[in-house]
Amino acid sequence: MSSSLGTLFRISTWGESHGPGVGVVVDGCPPQVALSVQDIQKELDRRRPGQSKIVTPRKEDDVAEILSGVLEGQTLGTPIGILVRNTDQRPSAYTEMQQAYRPSHADYTYDAKYGIRAVSGGGRSSARETIGRVAAGAIARQVLLQHWSGYQCLAYVKTVKDIQAAVPEVLSAELIESNIVRTCDPVAAERMIELIENTRSEGNSVGGIIECVVKGVPAGLGEPVFDKLEADLAKAMLSLPATKGFEIGSGFAGTLMTGLEHNDEFYMQDEKVRTRTNRSGGIQGGISNGEEIVFRVAFKPTATVLRGQKTVTNDGQDTTLAARGRHDPCVLPRAVPMVEAMVHLILVDHFLRQRAQRA
Amino acid sequence: MSSSLGTLFRISTWGESHGPGVGVVVDGCPPQVALSVQDIQKELDRRRPGQSKIVTPRKEDDVAEILSGVLEGQTLGTPIGILVRNTDQRPSAYTEMQQAYRPSHADYTYDAKYGIRAVSGGGRSSARETIGRVAAGAIARQVLLQHWSGYQCLAYVKTVKDIQAAVPEVLSAELIESNIVRTCDPVAAERMIELIENTRSEGNSVGGIIECVVKGVPAGLGEPVFDKLEADLAKAMLSLPATKGFEIGSGFAGTLMTGLEHNDEFYMQDEKVRTRTNRSGGIQGGISNGEEIVFRVAFKPTATVLRGQKTVTNDGQDTTLAARGRHDPCVLPRAVPMVEAMVHLILVDHFLRQRAQRA
Amino acid sequence: MSSSLGTLFRISTWGESHGPGVGVVVDGCPPQVALSVQDIQKELDRRRPGQSKIVTPRKEDDVAEILSGVLEGQTLGTPIGILVRNTDQRPSAYTEMQQAYRPSHADYTYDAKYGIRAVSGGGRSSARETIGRVAAGAIARQVLLQHWSGYQCLAYVKTVKDIQAAVPEVLSAELIESNIVRTCDPVAAERMIELIENTRSEGNSVGGIIECVVKGVPAGLGEPVFDKLEADLAKAMLSLPATKGFEIGSGFAGTLMTGLEHNDEFYMQDEKVRTRTNRSGGIQGGISNGEEIVFRVAFKPTATVLRGQKTVTNDGQDTTLAARGRHDPCVLPRAVPMVEAMVHLILVDHFLRQRAQRA
Amino acid sequence: MSSSLGTLFRISTWGESHGPGVGVVVDGCPPQVALSVQDIQKELDRRRPGQSKIVTPRKEDDVAEILSGVLEGQTLGTPIGILVRNTDQRPSAYTEMQQAYRPSHADYTYDAKYGIRAVSGGGRSSARETIGRVAAGAIARQVLLQHWSGYQCLAYVKTVKDIQAAVPEVLSAELIESNIVRTCDPVAAERMIELIENTRSEGNSVGGIIECVVKGVPAGLGEPVFDKLEADLAKAMLSLPATKGFEIGSGFAGTLMTGLEHNDEFYMQDEKVRTRTNRSGGIQGGISNGEEIVFRVAFKPTATVLRGQKTVTNDGQDTTLAARGRHDPCVLPRAVPMVEAMVHLILVDHFLRQRAQRA
Repeated sequence: MSSSLGTLFRISTWGESHGPGVGVVVDGCPPQVALSVQDIQKELDRRRPGQSKIVTPRKEDDVAEILSGVLEGQTLGTPIGILVRNTDQRPSAYTEMQQAYRPSHADYTYDAKYGIRAVSGGGRSSARETIGRVAAGAIARQVLLQHWSGYQCLAYVKTVKDIQAAVPEVLSAELIESNIVRTCDPVAAERMIELIENTRSEGNSVGGIIECVVKGVPAGLGEPVFDKLEADLAKAMLSLPATKGFEIGSGFAGTLMTGLEHNDEFYMQDEKVRTRTNRSGGIQGGISNGEEIVFRVAFKPTATVLRGQKTVTNDGQDTTLAARGRHDPCVLPRAVPMVEAMVHLILVDHFLRQRAQRA
Repeated sequence: MSSSLGTLFRISTWGESHGPGVGVVVDGCPPQVALSVQDIQKELDRRRPGQSKIVTPRKEDDVAEILSGVLEGQTLGTPIGILVRNTDQRPSAYTEMQQAYRPSHADYTYDAKYGIRAVSGGGRSSARETIGRVAAGAIARQVLLQHWSGYQCLAYVKTVKDIQAAVPEVLSAELIESNIVRTCDPVAAERMIELIENTRSEGNSVGGIIECVVKGVPAGLGEPVFDKLEADLAKAMLSLPATKGFEIGSGFAGTLMTGLEHNDEFYMQDEKVRTRTNRSGGIQGGISNGEEIVFRVAFKPTATVLRGQKTVTNDGQDTTLAARGRHDPCVLPRAVPMVEAMVHLILVDHFLRQRAQRA
Repeated sequence: MSSSLGTLFRISTWGESHGPGVGVVVDGCPPQVALSVQDIQKELDRRRPGQSKIVTPRKEDDVAEILSGVLEGQTLGTPIGILVRNTDQRPSAYTEMQQAYRPSHADYTYDAKYGIRAVSGGGRSSARETIGRVAAGAIARQVLLQHWSGYQCLAYVKTVKDIQAAVPEVLSAELIESNIVRTCDPVAAERMIELIENTRSEGNSVGGIIECVVKGVPAGLGEPVFDKLEADLAKAMLSLPATKGFEIGSGFAGTLMTGLEHNDEFYMQDEKVRTRTNRSGGIQGGISNGEEIVFRVAFKPTATVLRGQKTVTNDGQDTTLAARGRHDPCVLPRAVPMVEAMVHLILVDHFLRQRAQRA
Repeated sequence: MSSSLGTLFRISTWGESHGPGVGVVVDGCPPQVALSVQDIQKELDRRRPGQSKIVTPRKEDDVAEILSGVLEGQTLGTPIGILVRNTDQRPSAYTEMQQAYRPSHADYTYDAKYGIRAVSGGGRSSARETIGRVAAGAIARQVLLQHWSGYQCLAYVKTVKDIQAAVPEVLSAELIESNIVRTCDPVAAERMIELIENTRSEGNSVGGIIECVVKGVPAGLGEPVFDKLEADLAKAMLSLPATKGFEIGSGFAGTLMTGLEHNDEFYMQDEKVRTRTNRSGGIQGGISNGEEIVFRVAFKPTATVLRGQKTVTNDGQDTTLAARGRHDPCVLPRAVPMVEAMVHLILVDHFLRQRAQRA
């Protein structure tokens, strides 16, 4: 069950890094939603390896095939199966990685849990698993666009290590896609690229923060108590590889304010209830209030580094391990579409639940 | 469904703030676990109002009654029902709160979602809902103690606004309970208490950060992909009232490090795989690695303040609202047992899942 | 989890036969549904002991208290808690029943599963558990009545042992409630009552068949594949105590027909697609077709009989056991409201799912 | 969600009859279970078309590919993806079937529910969907065989129309597979084959009853209340195409007995609690008692017949429709492996739940 997400729009991802392929089944997508394979491929292309000089050069085209649930450009309301074949497939590669636990990877914990592991390429713990998420997210987005005029989810790199982007008044997908880091600040982008390239050349890695702004979510979405919208977003983000933190609205910095400073006062605008500030981040009591949903996610520096680190083997011997070859010196540029996909998935599930539970 | 949590150890809380009572049903607790009403009452007493001079003086004894599932001090394996009667019950109180949306509360969003609302005392969005969680958490803890020798979950107030506690080498429940703030630093405690009292006298409020250290969790607990242990913890914490952020291990600060600095090297100790540092926070790839699980939760300043704030009425008129009477100037001291309860609940659910899925 | 039912309208029953009480939490009921405690009590009165000379004389008034989720006659959209105190409470009664496994009861299997058991009154396996179902079913019915004009669910006793009721052209709740057996044939009712009374006087018991006709369900309700409407009804019925079989439409007898005889031809009536026959029982491919839903449920003779039967003790000794005192010589009259409650619950869940998943 | 089944061993089937393929994802299979593609293919071969003269001659080899979750003959504990390509694929075939609703098929109800439909070959309502179930069932069986010595699930055709098989004292898979009907009585098999062939030559169809005997299930399996073992079996069977009824143990016939006749007396045998009769069908109070689990499933005559029947078009016109070409004149021979697959799936899920919930 751990590879499934969602109550009504339920996705089940499958696939090992170096097995025959990876993919997803989406159960619960409404019928009559416009969907083409291009809608999916476009998002997969934003996350695939080899897309720019600052990501891993691993060769994978990540071509999606729709196996079911879609007919002549429309969803049928039945499960949608998506398959992406692995072309760089080495299921039986026996390397030193098999014996030595890579520091801050999931090698040791998978062994502790399962006693068996698809060693090659990280198996199930590989970021290739997110292909299924991104594909499913593209479907979720189509559902939301059909129902919410003005829906837009914009994630962007806010910081890489200590380099911080300035966030402009007006954000756009074009601005974010205009640079290979996917930040919203072209000047900072240059510095970030330089840092990432230098880091790679040192065999090292860096992390950073992705911020996400979601527009066009109507007030009244979300569930109280356990499935609060921010709780589901937090879970979704912390389920992405390499994430270490989540904060919404004022976040950790908000703890330095007093209640009088922090509270978002209400006012009326065009017969709509609005707030003057948005420290709530668009969600109050687990339910959207119609303001922009704003949150941030911390990504640690990539665990794979090309310099020797001390570790142990799976039979308990001390050793030293240095990864070789291809790696992402910074996961953030490729993580941007993953963050957006998770937002689409959480929102569409709450949208369907809201339709069910309304008066 | 939004009031239920867990896959195998599943809790369903119910109850409005000023209705007949609040409570929880726990479905999936194993049989033959030692459980007395005192195990539950002890934790409820840590979260109840009126327990000290820095929390709300609302009069509620919060006495738990076990309605089912326990016989002669042992669980039966059947659902455990817990009931706490509300004694301070004013279901029909019509006040100005009914018309005016309290800033940064859930009044407006509940209306947007449901079109109806138990106004008095915040209804379902009241922190009284957490009584059911704390009661269920006490049961979960009993299950874990039966299976994990050395299991201990210690949450404590790390900061109140800008006052920071020093965390000692050796933590203990006694140390944390030795002061009414529930911090781990008696010196900082004095300053925190002073700040909270001053804040209250100004009709204002403050927030802060709770840190939690969990010991004795065996390696191999947790699920990959969506139900990663840190993802479930993040969701659990963000489902608590007033929370704005979650971070595990190195968290947001970890984004300032390089991979070589950040990675936790493995070594062998007493035939166990250990890490020298713990930036992972005890979890790698969603699965525990046997180190301490360490995370932090940001709590915003209490939304209820006793000074006038601008807002709107439920029929769209501008107004000014000041809360009256009793409130928590700082939720953190009472939130400590809530954080611990959520940890117990997440861990016991993963423990049961792990028993099911093992080889 | 085994005490919960439903995907969106989710009920969790709790309570042992001779513990403090029994009840239910309903999570997922939409807001603004008219609901009074009388709506619930009315159905509980149809299932309670002591209601007529042919049911058990056990003294229980089964008075329902609504603990949450309802305000001034309307649902809030939050969990609805219902509590019924047990007044005939003997939790520690140590009798021979504790040692000897009652034949065709759940005593032995509960011991095999849990290794612990609330012996008195059957504990969790007692039919008192169905109080929670009947209460929740009454809530579900209110939701359906609000949305489906003409919704009516009529269950009735079709046979008691070999006595068969004639089913009239026009069924009504009044007709069924006009006799204490709850059959639709007043002449057969007399014979059934006589059989049940004679059976009781012999310390024996009888079973029979309940038929259920559901009117006013719109076409298009239900899910394909695993959650077919008839599959969910089958599960719901087989989850009731003492049931041994379920059939829909033509049922087992339909296996004697050829396809040409069995198929329901379509025709148009008032611009609606109709079928001339109804061997499908109102459901095709798991989805309602707008015709009456018709099914039957087999109930075995009550396992409790007042004459000696051979059995074994829980420590493996041969013994003879005869129940004493009060029992239902035939469960069917009290099972009628249980069957109806389960129908309401299955239908409301599919209704909410259908609202979520529609185009 | 309607295409998923199971709490811990969760399967999600996908695929339309004439789309690119059909398949299943199994999430929750324990690691280190021996599994080869042959284990799966063997069962698919028992359900595939064209296997004998009494089933549909549709040309499909139904070759399974394992896409994930298995490495070198062992499960990894991660999701297992199975793909079967459709080779007889006609997604855009526009025929009269598109306009005319086939009687007692799901054409009309799918339109009523979704407003869109993969017409060709029945789309999602086709029995090809059961390929995913049979594949998943084969995996479930491997898990059970690893844990339960002596586990055996034997389904067989008990009746075809009015021809009844005699059930021998000793059943075996070989006996059942020794004839193309998959009945346990070679003499009746001849008559059944003759009836099916005659029925086919008349363009008509027949139904019948499958009985299933499950050996080697330990006492104590199953959950009380809603997820009773017989309730889950009932749902699983009624979710199969063409089923109209389910009964366990004494079933409908048991309603003609008195309690004294019906009850299964306990006795001790080799220090095990046994029952002398088995009217309970191996389950008491929802939990297995260690005896054989015995149930029966009614299958209606195939809805597809080759002679003209009155019906309506999707735009409300009266018409006459006769299917052409290939069909199964009797679904039962191919339904036998489907029934067994569903038993494996229900039992493995309860087995995993039982491991989780034990003391």
